Amino acid sequence: MTLPVTIEDIRAAADRIHDIAVRTPLLHCEHLNEIAGADILIKPECLQVTGSFKIRGATNRIAQLFGDEIERGVVAFSSGNHAQGVARAARLFGSPATIVMPSDAPDVKVDGVRRNGAEIVYYERERESREEIAASIAERDGATLIPSYDDPHIVAGQGTVGLELADQARRAGKTIDHLIVCTGGGGLISGAALALKAAFPRAKAWTAEPEGHEDWARSLEAGHLIANASGVRSMCDAILTPEPGRIPFEIGSQVLSGGLVVTDAQVARAVEFAFRHLKLVVEPGGAVALATVLAGLPDHMKETTVAVVLTGGNVDPATFARLVSGTTSD
Amino acid sequence: MTLPVTIEDIRAAADRIHDIAVRTPLLHCEHLNEIAGADILIKPECLQVTGSFKIRGATNRIAQLFGDEIERGVVAFSSGNHAQGVARAARLFGSPATIVMPSDAPDVKVDGVRRNGAEIVYYERERESREEIAASIAERDGATLIPSYDDPHIVAGQGTVGLELADQARRAGKTIDHLIVCTGGGGLISGAALALKAAFPRAKAWTAEPEGHEDWARSLEAGHLIANASGVRSMCDAILTPEPGRIPFEIGSQVLSGGLVVTDAQVARAVEFAFRHLKLVVEPGGAVALATVLAGLPDHMKETTVAVVLTGGNVDPATFARLVSGTTSD
Repeated sequence: MTLPVTIEDIRAAADRIHDIAVRTPLLHCEHLNEIAGADILIKPECLQVTGSFKIRGATNRIAQLFGDEIERGVVAFSSGNHAQGVARAARLFGSPATIVMPSDAPDVKVDGVRRNGAEIVYYERERESREEIAASIAERDGATLIPSYDDPHIVAGQGTVGLELADQARRAGKTIDHLIVCTGGGGLISGAALALKAAFPRAKAWTAEPEGHEDWARSLEAGHLIANASGVRSMCDAILTPEPGRIPFEIGSQVLSGGLVVTDAQVARAVEFAFRHLKLVVEPGGAVALATVLAGLPDHMKETTVAVVLTGGNVDPATFARLVSGTTSD
Repeated sequence: MTLPVTIEDIRAAADRIHDIAVRTPLLHCEHLNEIAGADILIKPECLQVTGSFKIRGATNRIAQLFGDEIERGVVAFSSGNHAQGVARAARLFGSPATIVMPSDAPDVKVDGVRRNGAEIVYYERERESREEIAASIAERDGATLIPSYDDPHIVAGQGTVGLELADQARRAGKTIDHLIVCTGGGGLISGAALALKAAFPRAKAWTAEPEGHEDWARSLEAGHLIANASGVRSMCDAILTPEPGRIPFEIGSQVLSGGLVVTDAQVARAVEFAFRHLKLVVEPGGAVALATVLAGLPDHMKETTVAVVLTGGNVDPATFARLVSGTTSD
């Protein structure tokens, strides 16, 4: 069957984002390998420009605006990481950006948007529709909406993580058996799995989600979209989406093997582990895949090579301080 | 004149440590470049095995033990980072290690030593001599003392940071004009400067020290060893040494251009900056070089390419939490 994104789209995205996004390194940690009973390859997208992988997709989309679309500007709605990616990419392409953010977005994410010169429009999560606000701004200004995941250009941009992983693993003489990615709408996992499987056809890819927000795990198992129950809280603000994106799921249902689920307490432990042993600042939503490793990998992943993406590091200082100093030493 | 360490010694060290230490990446941060008015290349040795560069020198020294020296073991005294480096390298070579540590060493460093199976002997900073304790252990067990900086093999091992920096800069199409390194005894700066200048002969190298502990800055200016006044406190526990090491200074007085000095408050700001913008966990003593950049580079470094080494990330959670959440957002 034909998928809405191809490996050629992802390779083209890699060329477009080359001067804006960085190639994040591939790290490893012997202590983590011992705990996991597997060879864990860590892709720290917290070290990416704007502190998350989102700059990849945003750049790939904005690079394809044409004519006076650039001057008319872009608009996006996001709790933070996509907002920062769009704001930075728009600034670099000289396009005015308006970002619709929830009024309770972490300060560190609001600061990141503001530093890149974007205009911020706040909305109330409970009472207002961010989609409607963004649509009315797009209408008013003739601006282009940059979706956060349900778009083939966004998926192709995020998929460059998979291209890099495959290349970095090969250079290290390794074959990746499994890929685990923190998943909200699914733009990253769907693109990255597609790219990784082009290099390693037998690799299996898995979503990682917090309990109560395991829409991907359930949708993959059912074979159709299942939404989360509303009102379940989680500290993983970066990846709380109501249901899988349609385009990501169209791809994901073909290329993903299933979903892993962890509790917020296990996520907190992963943030602390990354602080203590990896010396990386990872936000809760960016530590979910690592949390699945620390919580105990399924038996079939033992003694295999597992790539884990740390998707972002934009965490408020007070939250981070509480997470790293509230836990006792292991 | 002939120096006690040559570029060939550093290249040989790179071969010896290849399977134990990692090649840390070279990072950059546009926001930092804007603040600095220079192109800053960041070498994050906090991402190194054991969380600091010290594994490099320790491995290079222990790899050269011969005959039954391995079985008789090694001994080292250190406030923490060298201790962890020696403990890890010794374990990997199958050599028993005893580490003499101050009773007030940060828990995170004690844990790192213990995790690598080394025996720890505590001493009281004010009342006891760690040199005497280590010497008596070496005498009793026939163990080899692994010095933390005043040793040509240690300097050669740490110097591999300079080899990597030069290679990474070249691959990025850059010439390094200046190198700034957090400096205690000087094992790292002397070796790294030697290696860097072999690649970029016009590069200038500078020590970075906390106020009250600027023995290198003063010694380089005077042209002979000057010790620090005793009793001056600093949060930079990793790099508080009474005076420059003799071998490092013999090299440093030939290859270094001078010393930069910052306050503990400036170091605290650098730790917070690394958390917020680099998403890296850096300990105070490892953030001193970054602090010199944030405090304002000397005019002659503006619009040049400046390599900055973040030397370590082993900081206690409570200290880190205080440093990152106590400061207001910039």
